[in-house]
Amino acid sequence: METLAPTSICRHTKIWITTERPTQFIDLTDRLEALVEEAGLRFGVVNVQTLHTTTAIVMNELEPLLLADFASLLESAAPRDAGYRHDDPTARTVNLMPGERINGHAHCRALLLGSSVCLNVIDGQLVLGRWQRVLLAELDGPRAREVSVLILGEAGR
Amino acid sequence: METLAPTSICRHTKIWITTERPTQFIDLTDRLEALVEEAGLRFGVVNVQTLHTTTAIVMNELEPLLLADFASLLESAAPRDAGYRHDDPTARTVNLMPGERINGHAHCRALLLGSSVCLNVIDGQLVLGRWQRVLLAELDGPRAREVSVLILGEAGR
Amino acid sequence: METLAPTSICRHTKIWITTERPTQFIDLTDRLEALVEEAGLRFGVVNVQTLHTTTAIVMNELEPLLLADFASLLESAAPRDAGYRHDDPTARTVNLMPGERINGHAHCRALLLGSSVCLNVIDGQLVLGRWQRVLLAELDGPRAREVSVLILGEAGR
Repeated sequence: METLAPTSICRHTKIWITTERPTQFIDLTDRLEALVEEAGLRFGVVNVQTLHTTTAIVMNELEPLLLADFASLLESAAPRDAGYRHDDPTARTVNLMPGERINGHAHCRALLLGSSVCLNVIDGQLVLGRWQRVLLAELDGPRAREVSVLILGEAGR
Repeated sequence: METLAPTSICRHTKIWITTERPTQFIDLTDRLEALVEEAGLRFGVVNVQTLHTTTAIVMNELEPLLLADFASLLESAAPRDAGYRHDDPTARTVNLMPGERINGHAHCRALLLGSSVCLNVIDGQLVLGRWQRVLLAELDGPRAREVSVLILGEAGR
Repeated sequence: METLAPTSICRHTKIWITTERPTQFIDLTDRLEALVEEAGLRFGVVNVQTLHTTTAIVMNELEPLLLADFASLLESAAPRDAGYRHDDPTARTVNLMPGERINGHAHCRALLLGSSVCLNVIDGQLVLGRWQRVLLAELDGPRAREVSVLILGEAGR
């Protein structure tokens, strides 16, 4: 019989990833599951948030040919060479950095995909369908990237 | 006068839905409102997460002609017959199942729409604008589908 | 030494915005940071949810030329003049209002961008990458708009 009142839990951590290609999908699922277990979360949510404006967090299947289809979809939705105003150094006046990257397409793709995913946790496990994986979408790599993970809910025994 | 300290609440449940068409938008709002009431949540969030990689959870207006516009939008963004590598059985080596469906387009559409929506709750009610409804977007139906619902926050009296 | 047990916190508020153009990105970040500080949240999440079906909440860089690129992207994904069934008064039978706006494109764009963003908070601060800002995307302005903000987690000392 469960007699202890549940204890609230709130933990934050970061995941660091070095990406290797301009467009890449990196599976974060195992790392997230380990963080949930380590935190002792029994019921609650895990909010996974990228800290970059040219990456996204998505959920889908980790099948290599499908990931190639995703890359084609993104190239079709926001082509690399569409001539983004963000990439025109003669027009830009804001946020200009030395070595500014040509990455208007990557910002546009990130806008479409979204910067965070909130996942449910039950009985200490991420709630995931059979094919669901949590992926960091690198859209302007290769780069060093950071993902923020917030674990919130009830601790188990 | 309110003298009781609020009690934390964290409840999980699932919604099962059998879809009827290849592309379909199913309104989950009434079921979510009933779950919030049943759980006794007063303030907090409800995280609604699909468990499939060819469905999405979205918020928008439930107007039949608009839903037809959404279907056209998805056909334009990720056409059914664009020749997805995910659908080439001669090339696939990963996650292949007997009776594998031709559904690269559905994965791509799910990627664009997103797998979850997190909703606010105040005074025991889902916070929703006048036309907002929470919809399961079926992108590769008809199928039996499952949606995970996590309710987190403070219980009311 | 921290000896006090953390206290759960759950606060709701709204932000009101009057937009000025058909397509506009309004930076909510400073207002959100002030709300987090005012609520005394130390660790947790902030769920930012629009209450409209022709707006979206997104995270990206606030660079004026990039915002123009985003507008072009949306025009390309869901053109203003694509002939949406939602805009055909002779066919509509549901949710018809006096002065109904021609805004099928805006609903479609909202569907692609998403209605909410869930942000992490650590040490009393929104977790944000260097260029990340939280933006209300107006897609059918100018209008008066409302955004719901739910703050959930542990209070600080």
